[in-house]
Amino acid sequence: MDFLKKYQIPFANYLKQFEWNGNPKSLYEPVEYLMGLGGKQIRPLLVMMAYDMFKDGVEFTLDAAMAVEVFHNFSLMHDDVMDDASLRRGKQTTHEKYDVNTAILSGDVMIIKSYSLLSQYNERADLLKCFNKMAIELCEGQRLDMDFETIDNVAIMDYITMITNKTSVLLACSLQLGGILAEASQSDQLHLYEFGKNIGIAFQIQDDVLDTYGNPKAVGKKQGGDILQNKKTYLYLKALELSTEAQKKELIALYNNSEIEDDFKINEVKKRFNSLVVEEYANQVKEAYYDLAISHLKQVQVNDAKQDALKQLANFMIKRRH
Amino acid sequence: MDFLKKYQIPFANYLKQFEWNGNPKSLYEPVEYLMGLGGKQIRPLLVMMAYDMFKDGVEFTLDAAMAVEVFHNFSLMHDDVMDDASLRRGKQTTHEKYDVNTAILSGDVMIIKSYSLLSQYNERADLLKCFNKMAIELCEGQRLDMDFETIDNVAIMDYITMITNKTSVLLACSLQLGGILAEASQSDQLHLYEFGKNIGIAFQIQDDVLDTYGNPKAVGKKQGGDILQNKKTYLYLKALELSTEAQKKELIALYNNSEIEDDFKINEVKKRFNSLVVEEYANQVKEAYYDLAISHLKQVQVNDAKQDALKQLANFMIKRRH
Repeated sequence: MDFLKKYQIPFANYLKQFEWNGNPKSLYEPVEYLMGLGGKQIRPLLVMMAYDMFKDGVEFTLDAAMAVEVFHNFSLMHDDVMDDASLRRGKQTTHEKYDVNTAILSGDVMIIKSYSLLSQYNERADLLKCFNKMAIELCEGQRLDMDFETIDNVAIMDYITMITNKTSVLLACSLQLGGILAEASQSDQLHLYEFGKNIGIAFQIQDDVLDTYGNPKAVGKKQGGDILQNKKTYLYLKALELSTEAQKKELIALYNNSEIEDDFKINEVKKRFNSLVVEEYANQVKEAYYDLAISHLKQVQVNDAKQDALKQLANFMIKRRH
Repeated sequence: MDFLKKYQIPFANYLKQFEWNGNPKSLYEPVEYLMGLGGKQIRPLLVMMAYDMFKDGVEFTLDAAMAVEVFHNFSLMHDDVMDDASLRRGKQTTHEKYDVNTAILSGDVMIIKSYSLLSQYNERADLLKCFNKMAIELCEGQRLDMDFETIDNVAIMDYITMITNKTSVLLACSLQLGGILAEASQSDQLHLYEFGKNIGIAFQIQDDVLDTYGNPKAVGKKQGGDILQNKKTYLYLKALELSTEAQKKELIALYNNSEIEDDFKINEVKKRFNSLVVEEYANQVKEAYYDLAISHLKQVQVNDAKQDALKQLANFMIKRRH
């Protein structure tokens, strides 16, 4: 991924020098633990890459890049508590390593720190407006996700709204922040936002597929987590849509059955997914959102070479070969 | 409290008209529930009162006043989860009425909403700087409070640091925000901040006393909650300081004993507090912080009449007769 080095190196250097307030250690150590687990750090790269389309000197964006990365990690820390997840990036989640109260409070301070980082760009009020909107939508998305757990049948449209808010708006906002910092036009900002939003939707649908069909070592978590948590994923909702009434009742009963053994439940659900070829449907929809994303990227008023890095990143995220 | 009406009425009207995003209801209803429980709403009044010392038209400050009230309620919502408290203002806490995940997520969106409200004052970067510092310190204070639960002996100085961060800096910041909005001098802002900080410390020491000695109906919670949670309050730490080595060991063992019956524990601890007259010590220290607060208020460069409302409010908070 050579084309990313231009952004990864300054961000890595920034991170190395970054100092969390030292005290109390019990507040900041869990933050450094989670952020030290790595991850692809795509969001900060998006801030820098969007900026780089219009202006030189990506170092100017580093505080904003850090703000979105910290905010993303806050959402992971709290979501893991709410989902009672035990693994994150193949390691213990924060509340497993420490405790739930620690994950709540250290997550809170991360929200504040991300605002604190953004506040350093005094002269650009648009930054905060964009960030506030995203942050509120992200909470709304997580809430919908939780609510969906107790509803039998969720319309696919509502599911798309949920993943848009929960996942995509932060990618979209990261790109727009880069655009705002580079003083890009409103229209360019909008197309960057829409590019990120649609790539995010494609990415989340892919994530659903990987949770059920992915290689546990590559993904960093066991197969079938969503199934065990009765998550209304694209795969499940599409399966319901394609089922006869009798199949539907049976799948709903199976999906909500918490009495049966884990591996048995995963296998039985997957059998039904396979017979309805929902993985194939999911991949098709993912492609459609990917194409929409690229069409927005092409409308940003810079030359093709300037669009290339983001296009490559989109390909990398949505593991396609072109 | 006639002198407060000038501030309470516009804030009450503002609150009545305030609209949380409606959807999802499951995210915002818990916020409205907690904020609807009332409380004294001292923090928004402090914003308005500080502004009013320098300029007319307190309506200008209403968004900032709401920001501090929302942020305060976020901290209550999350602290109640962490403390596993069942009552708040005599009613069910948010996580008792709904569930823990709801309280986590609705608390998160309240942090964001408070920033969103403050961001509306584009032209005043100092506002965010002041708010960020406070918000980080508040989390640090809550963390210290949690850490103290598992340490036998906490120095009274460390205890004062903890309550300063957990409670006082939000009062101090509220006053400074009013000063910033009114374009008060740096020196006046500092004295307002110090006034609020010291009143807050006095208030918290009083709160410790009320938790153990207050009238449950007036306070809105059962007597002895701090004792049952082994909270390192001023009363307890002063008792340790005044104890012989033998008394100290015995009090520590008693305080950390979770096997004994609640009422018995409360009574036994109070017997020891009473014999060491720690309530009297607490009241003396409270008075000292109160006096320090008033001395800062007097140094704000406005005439005495302009200081009067804040002085009256301080008297009301630190229930003294003058």
